[in-house]
Amino acid sequence: MTELKHQIKINAAPDKVYAALATETGLKQWWTADTRADSKIGGDAEFGFDKRGMVFHMKIDNLDPAKHVVWSCHGDHPEWAGTVLTWDLTPQDGGTMLRFTQSGWKAATDFYAMCNSTWGELMYRMKDYLEGREPGPHWKQ
Amino acid sequence: MTELKHQIKINAAPDKVYAALATETGLKQWWTADTRADSKIGGDAEFGFDKRGMVFHMKIDNLDPAKHVVWSCHGDHPEWAGTVLTWDLTPQDGGTMLRFTQSGWKAATDFYAMCNSTWGELMYRMKDYLEGREPGPHWKQ
Repeated sequence: MTELKHQIKINAAPDKVYAALATETGLKQWWTADTRADSKIGGDAEFGFDKRGMVFHMKIDNLDPAKHVVWSCHGDHPEWAGTVLTWDLTPQDGGTMLRFTQSGWKAATDFYAMCNSTWGELMYRMKDYLEGREPGPHWKQ
Repeated sequence: MTELKHQIKINAAPDKVYAALATETGLKQWWTADTRADSKIGGDAEFGFDKRGMVFHMKIDNLDPAKHVVWSCHGDHPEWAGTVLTWDLTPQDGGTMLRFTQSGWKAATDFYAMCNSTWGELMYRMKDYLEGREPGPHWKQ
């Protein structure tokens, strides 16, 4: 088992960063425009790519406002199924230190490495969105 | 020991991707404007950040045109010193599959996770540069 770890300092308060992770409206601003997400623990979220050629299906395992978001992935990509995605928010210098881990990867494959690069780009895209630079989502569909 | 792995498909030929990694002019377009780099095996490279508040000192361990670039880091950041940075280029569909590994990290620290996010952003920035979108370097100094 291996994991991906990312981290970035965002010049926005933890409640704003939380809204980018815990609401459908927020998630659509930086990840994929094709997002459907509940905002309650035990709810579901779906992230679609390439006109639904690939869809990541998530269960929302935990939501702790301004602090913590956890999803578990149940498909449809076989390498993502079984991974757990954890977001931790810590107030720092008037902004937020955002830490992300995707654990449960079975192997460090080519797809793992490509997803790692995209997560890095997404961390900066989320920062740009929350700091008012309006980058739009990575996947606009 | 742990390592960072990144990968991206670039719509540019391997010799163009190689020039972005093996020449000072190329490196300045996507990483840091404060780059000084030899273009021969055994030579040195320096990457400066925050007005030389931090400088990564590299030895150029291998250069295989259009295929392979290896650097070893000798400072000045204590977590980077001792890491080895390997770039592998493979022709694919008229472009290049670019694989990157930074091995030899002693631990998966906060700085490791922040560098991982920045490497992801840099992979996309290099792609943007090589595909003609002129993003400029991440650190413009």
